[in-house]
Amino acid sequence: MVAIASTVDEKADHAAKGLDGLLALVKDDLEQVNRTIVEHMHSPIALIPQLAGHIIAAGGKRLRPVLTLASARLVGYQGDRHVKLAAVIELLHTATLLHDDVVDESELRRGRASANALFGNQPSVLVGDFLFSRSFELMVEDGSLTVLSILSRASSIIAEGEVLQLITANDTETTVESYLEVICSKTAALFAAACRIGAVVADRPKTEEDALSAYGLSLGIAFQLIDDALDYSSQQAVLGKTIGDDFREGKITLPVIHAFHAGDEEEKIFWRRCLEKLDQTESDLDHAISLLHKHGSLEATIDYARKYGDDARAALAIFPDNAVRQSMFDAIDFCVDRAY
Amino acid sequence: MVAIASTVDEKADHAAKGLDGLLALVKDDLEQVNRTIVEHMHSPIALIPQLAGHIIAAGGKRLRPVLTLASARLVGYQGDRHVKLAAVIELLHTATLLHDDVVDESELRRGRASANALFGNQPSVLVGDFLFSRSFELMVEDGSLTVLSILSRASSIIAEGEVLQLITANDTETTVESYLEVICSKTAALFAAACRIGAVVADRPKTEEDALSAYGLSLGIAFQLIDDALDYSSQQAVLGKTIGDDFREGKITLPVIHAFHAGDEEEKIFWRRCLEKLDQTESDLDHAISLLHKHGSLEATIDYARKYGDDARAALAIFPDNAVRQSMFDAIDFCVDRAY
Repeated sequence: MVAIASTVDEKADHAAKGLDGLLALVKDDLEQVNRTIVEHMHSPIALIPQLAGHIIAAGGKRLRPVLTLASARLVGYQGDRHVKLAAVIELLHTATLLHDDVVDESELRRGRASANALFGNQPSVLVGDFLFSRSFELMVEDGSLTVLSILSRASSIIAEGEVLQLITANDTETTVESYLEVICSKTAALFAAACRIGAVVADRPKTEEDALSAYGLSLGIAFQLIDDALDYSSQQAVLGKTIGDDFREGKITLPVIHAFHAGDEEEKIFWRRCLEKLDQTESDLDHAISLLHKHGSLEATIDYARKYGDDARAALAIFPDNAVRQSMFDAIDFCVDRAY
Repeated sequence: MVAIASTVDEKADHAAKGLDGLLALVKDDLEQVNRTIVEHMHSPIALIPQLAGHIIAAGGKRLRPVLTLASARLVGYQGDRHVKLAAVIELLHTATLLHDDVVDESELRRGRASANALFGNQPSVLVGDFLFSRSFELMVEDGSLTVLSILSRASSIIAEGEVLQLITANDTETTVESYLEVICSKTAALFAAACRIGAVVADRPKTEEDALSAYGLSLGIAFQLIDDALDYSSQQAVLGKTIGDDFREGKITLPVIHAFHAGDEEEKIFWRRCLEKLDQTESDLDHAISLLHKHGSLEATIDYARKYGDDARAALAIFPDNAVRQSMFDAIDFCVDRAY
């Protein structure tokens, strides 16, 4: 398992520390965000907060709302709108997770039974719709048409990305460009919007808005690239997640695209059988992983992520060198170094 | 099949004429609405307009956008915002239809193969999300926070109603009150919002807004009551739809609640077997229909609808007696008389 598997403890520590810095910086705001989320998933229909609570309590890193809080802090925002809007971002994200898990027929989410596995597909679709609607209600409470425009646009783009992912699934001819379009849309668009909103609430100039959006976009791409590498990495198991989900679903991610193109005809036949026909035996995942290592496909994916991480870093160059900016740099390291 | 089956041609004519009046009145606006819908379901991801086009081209009566157009006309609105917002209403409605059909595992929609049957559940969920997002983008273009507030609230209520319907499904102890709560939320809330928006764009006083909303709410309840009666009526077959869908899914609607409470112990055991355990044989639907007739349950449901129709009529009393108001009265007759 070469690079990915050689879990160097200090590197893992460094990655964890990276996000800890950001989390410490926005700790009080983030607690308010969590309270706002819980308040707004309330409904007299008890199943709604039960199901929404299941996925929200499972936690995750709250990376997207943290980015909104940090971005607002970076541009010197003094008000409290960023808290409500960070909650909006997490509600939107949660709605898409619920629908993703239904679409992917996922059994697990963040190491626990997924909402669809526990409650069924039907309420997962409908509670997703509810959280989606609630997030727009909360945006309306905030009252900014600019924010509504950014996030309704981001939502459309996310849905387009998910549909494109569905279309490219099981197609080993998918290009790197198509793959990047998918992850830009389904993942990075919300990272970009989350960061942009930090500048919008502070009423900062367009250049700062765009810089934060560019940071979020590149960070989101790097994040998803590493996610897609981790799906084939033993490091994933350390994080309490299953490996090989993408493989079993025939999702075409960068590691696979890389190995497919580097492979000989026999290997191409293997990938087509497993990913196009979904005709898989028990040992196929191990063989797939060995091919990824043979061709350095995970390293190649991480190199891509690192390049986008560099872009994210460069985007923040217009801001003064301070603790907030440093912690946002550290967040890049966290996103990329999760792979080790 | 007593009242329902005795298809009196003049009555059917009358019902059809009812909606024709309204349609004639808003014909030009409605064509613009259709163009706006087609423009806004566009996406470079071809599957999106294909799938959305399938359900939107299937048509339906466009009752909800027509209500927005008529309401704006009733209060003397002279601008063109009502066209865009009527398109928003239909896009929102279409998004909920796509998700409904996935949740209900429907095979047919408006007499054609449903989108989920034709394209699969996965793209249906995601294209529903896309149309939902697009409808909010279009609201943002319109630029009214009042409209955004009304429709984001309506969307949350619709999702709550759908979840409540899921919870009450297969429960023969469901009360009339719970049933009415479901149909108020899942159906009538959007009718109410569609009508209210006609007054909002025209900047009319709160009393007119509320009157139009009350009209829409009562009309929506009447509409859904008749829909639920039609699911057990041979008239449904005349409309090119299957009957017994609710029965097969174990949905608890007013006809069933009425017959269950009027029935003896043997009948209650029958309803519980069919609707709670979903243990059904081929002849059970016919037997269910015969029980509904024995107890006058369809007539009772139509009586309920007629009462809500009267409420809808009364709500328009504050407006002058003119051709628009008359056609909105006729729309009530259309919604109720579909049962004949």
